[in-house]
Amino acid sequence: MQNLATMTGAEIRSLIRRQKITGSTAGMAEGYTQANLVILKKEYAFDFLLFAQRNPKSCPILDVVEPGSYTPKLIARHADIRTDLPKYRIYINGSFESEVNDITHLYEDDMVGFLIGCSFTFETPLLRAGIPVRHIEEKRNVPMYRTNIPCQSAGIFQGPVVVSMRPMTSEQAIRAVQITTKFPNVHGAPIHIGDPTEIGIQDIYSPDYGEIVTIKDHEVPVFWACGVTPQAVVMESQPSLMITHAPGCMFVSDVYEEALSIL
Amino acid sequence: MQNLATMTGAEIRSLIRRQKITGSTAGMAEGYTQANLVILKKEYAFDFLLFAQRNPKSCPILDVVEPGSYTPKLIARHADIRTDLPKYRIYINGSFESEVNDITHLYEDDMVGFLIGCSFTFETPLLRAGIPVRHIEEKRNVPMYRTNIPCQSAGIFQGPVVVSMRPMTSEQAIRAVQITTKFPNVHGAPIHIGDPTEIGIQDIYSPDYGEIVTIKDHEVPVFWACGVTPQAVVMESQPSLMITHAPGCMFVSDVYEEALSIL
Repeated sequence: MQNLATMTGAEIRSLIRRQKITGSTAGMAEGYTQANLVILKKEYAFDFLLFAQRNPKSCPILDVVEPGSYTPKLIARHADIRTDLPKYRIYINGSFESEVNDITHLYEDDMVGFLIGCSFTFETPLLRAGIPVRHIEEKRNVPMYRTNIPCQSAGIFQGPVVVSMRPMTSEQAIRAVQITTKFPNVHGAPIHIGDPTEIGIQDIYSPDYGEIVTIKDHEVPVFWACGVTPQAVVMESQPSLMITHAPGCMFVSDVYEEALSIL
Repeated sequence: MQNLATMTGAEIRSLIRRQKITGSTAGMAEGYTQANLVILKKEYAFDFLLFAQRNPKSCPILDVVEPGSYTPKLIARHADIRTDLPKYRIYINGSFESEVNDITHLYEDDMVGFLIGCSFTFETPLLRAGIPVRHIEEKRNVPMYRTNIPCQSAGIFQGPVVVSMRPMTSEQAIRAVQITTKFPNVHGAPIHIGDPTEIGIQDIYSPDYGEIVTIKDHEVPVFWACGVTPQAVVMESQPSLMITHAPGCMFVSDVYEEALSIL
């Protein structure tokens, strides 16, 4: 049995390309940055890139694959985004259509691929600083919520910020602000600490995506902008075609977490 | 005589709009962020925004004015980029055509305006930390150089990084790295310290733009990516129409420097 955790990003992608891995990439290639994927036709690309530029906490762009290429040159120079993710989702006119393991046959000449930072990247530094990451402890998906905080709109794209939540003590939250500030390319510092109703979350025990985790006495919920935001926003504007990664089935890059740190 | 240094960004823009100010904005509205301007037709906008996204140190985007609008909503919600800069330059097919004080008659429906951070913004914090800014001391324009460092290309746009240079002691350079790291939206940390030939600058005393300043014994040159980079790169690809600010005649925003600090 191979140890997927200690492999490189390239080794994991090679297994994925041969469909030896077709599920979640969580815990694989430890230390290598993983990314969300959004593929749109060129006609939507300027609006989407502008949306990302205006909403860097929700939508931190790690790389963009231009029309005519399939390779994210900055973060994985030998990868192919048509084959190197375990599972993709196809959306037609904003509606979920199907899941597939390879999109080579669907990829058109005028498509643009956006690779977007994933908060998975800063969880290792949090754990190393002694800060609990409850959804890892409890082996669940991170809880995510729609908020009442509007994104900055761009062209056809607008909608609310979606956040992920990690519970911790107030002291740990201060340290978590310091640590995640160093990683603006994977959502950066939290956008809210404490009372969920202040950002429009009525019931913390009913996440809109993912699963609820235990919130202990003396813990506060800490909220980070989440990479689900751009997918939710794009879906609402119903583009003719959108392809994304399936939840948890991320793109594994060649870039170490440390390379994304600004301090 | 009004004191232009203590006015707000909005007050300065009002004087500019009425053409009471038609020259350099250096030293005006102290504490308010000033920005470079590049206006292109929509057909070039995706490539340019992608170029900026891939080269954030040379081309940090502060705001983008979409077609049909003239207002940079994020940094000056009541401004008009057609009238609120003292002087503009018009380039046709990559060649300089003329300088004007108002571009209302030239602005077309499919134009996109990009406001790009200016290193002027971090010079006040440097001065407050006791670090000399020689070109201010000597009342000259900052010296700027083409390097042999290639920008990450995007679509039709490619070319070398242009840098600005400030001489200081090695100890001051370390402190300057710390201070400017806090301002990624106005070029951030330096990209080189020391030997100019390592980045392709053969004669430090012959800048490609701006003016040379005194480099004292025991000082090293410190180089920052410069907002001239995107203008130089765009000019080389000869778009049918480009409008920029004239050198030193910047857009004065409503945003304080401190609002752009990440720490």
